[in-house]
Amino acid sequence: MTQNIYDNPEFFQNYSQLPRSVDGLDGAPEWPSLRALLPPVAGRNVLDLGCGFGWFCRWAARQGAARVLGVDVSERMLARARAETGEAEISYLQADLERFEASPGSFDLAYSSLAVHYIENLAGLLANVHAALVPGGKLVFSTEHPIMTAPANQGWHTDAAGRPSWPVNGYLDEGPRSTDWLAKGVVKQHRTIGTYVGLLVGAGFAVTHICEWGPSPEQVAAHPEWAAERERPPFLLMACDRP
Amino acid sequence: MTQNIYDNPEFFQNYSQLPRSVDGLDGAPEWPSLRALLPPVAGRNVLDLGCGFGWFCRWAARQGAARVLGVDVSERMLARARAETGEAEISYLQADLERFEASPGSFDLAYSSLAVHYIENLAGLLANVHAALVPGGKLVFSTEHPIMTAPANQGWHTDAAGRPSWPVNGYLDEGPRSTDWLAKGVVKQHRTIGTYVGLLVGAGFAVTHICEWGPSPEQVAAHPEWAAERERPPFLLMACDRP
Repeated sequence: MTQNIYDNPEFFQNYSQLPRSVDGLDGAPEWPSLRALLPPVAGRNVLDLGCGFGWFCRWAARQGAARVLGVDVSERMLARARAETGEAEISYLQADLERFEASPGSFDLAYSSLAVHYIENLAGLLANVHAALVPGGKLVFSTEHPIMTAPANQGWHTDAAGRPSWPVNGYLDEGPRSTDWLAKGVVKQHRTIGTYVGLLVGAGFAVTHICEWGPSPEQVAAHPEWAAERERPPFLLMACDRP
Repeated sequence: MTQNIYDNPEFFQNYSQLPRSVDGLDGAPEWPSLRALLPPVAGRNVLDLGCGFGWFCRWAARQGAARVLGVDVSERMLARARAETGEAEISYLQADLERFEASPGSFDLAYSSLAVHYIENLAGLLANVHAALVPGGKLVFSTEHPIMTAPANQGWHTDAAGRPSWPVNGYLDEGPRSTDWLAKGVVKQHRTIGTYVGLLVGAGFAVTHICEWGPSPEQVAAHPEWAAERERPPFLLMACDRP
C-alpha cells in the first residue's frame, strides 16, 4: 500500500509552504508545459488523481469543465481543498489511488500531477484509468524524472570548475527509494521511462508526448536560482491517448 | 552533414577490435534485448540503416528475409561487409543516411543499431523511413542513451564508498557533443528521450517500446566488469509501428 506522507504533520506543514501550495498552478514552474499537453476541457468530465489542494480542479472548472472529480488519499489536503472550493461542478473523494475505481467510460480526461511516483501498483491504477476514460479520452500526468529518483544518495555534485552535476546510479534497479524531503523517510517508486511506457502501452494507451521537463532559458533568466534544474530534468510529463 | 568518423583510419582500426566487430551480434550485449523487439523477418524486406560490417544483414538473411538492404556511409566498413557476405538476398549501398531515400512502401522493417546518434537531421531521416515502410511496418533501433551523451565531460565518478555514479549535466541542452572515443573529436548528437518520441510521433510512428538498456543481473554475473553499466543505461532501444 502506498505511503500517505501528506498526512504526516511535519510533511504537511512543510509542503503547505512550497510556492505551489501557496500560489497554486502559477507557483509550479512545470505547469505551462503540462498545460500545453492538455486537451480543451470545456464541457468535459475531468478526473484529477492526487488532487491535493484542488488547484487543478478549480482551474478546470474555470475553463468550463462539466464535472471535475478530485481524488486524494490525504484528508488534510482535501479539508483545505473543500474549504477553498465553491464551484458546484467540483467534487472531492478521499481514496487510496491504488484502490479507487471510477465508473467505466465516465471521464474525458484523467490528469495527475506529481502523484504516480508514490504508487506501488501503477499497472493496476492505469488499468482503472483506462477503463474510466471514454474512447478518444486522454491521460496527462507528471511524475518525478527517474534521473531524480534513481540515486541511492540524491544530491548535487559540484566539479572543480563549480558546475553542478547530478550523479546517477541505481538507474536500472527499480523500486522504492526513501529520501528525506520535507520529512524523513518519504518513499517514492523509482521507475525508468521505459517502464512507464511499457505500463502505459500495456494498459492500452498510445503515448503521444514525453517531456523531460526543466525550466526554459526564459524561466531561468527570470529565476536564476533554477539554473541547475536544466542540468538534469526534475520532472517527466507524459500525454497519452486512450484509443 | 553528419561526420563520417568510421572512415577515419585510427577510429576504424580501434572500432574493428571491439567485441562487436570481432564477434558480431553475439559480441553486442544489448543484442538479445534488441532482437526481442524485432518482428519475424522471414519472407520480409529489411532495411539496415548504418549496417557497418553487415552482421545484422547476414543474421536477417539467415532468418529467411526475402531481401536485405544495408546502408552505410563508411566505405571501409562496406568493403569488409561485402567481402564477408555471400548471401544473394543482401545488397549494400554506400550513402549518407541523411540523404538516402528508399522507394515508398518498399520495406517491412527498418532497423538501425547505434547510428542515429550521429544523425543531425533526424526528422528528415525518420520521414524517409516512414515513407519507405509499408503500413504495418516497424522501425526498431538503438542509440546512445541521453544520460550517456548529455555531460560536458563524460565519465564515472566514484564516491567515498567506492560506488560508481555517472554525473549528469547539460541534459536539456541538446545538440552536438564531441568526445574522444576510439579517436579524438567523435561528434554525436545529444537528444532527450522526449525529443526522440516527439520526432517519431511527428513522423507518423506509434512508439510501442522503449528499453533503457543495461546488462541484466545474469549478464553481470557472467561479466562482472559490466556491473557499472547497470548504474546508468548506456543505450536506448526503441520499437515503433508505422500504422
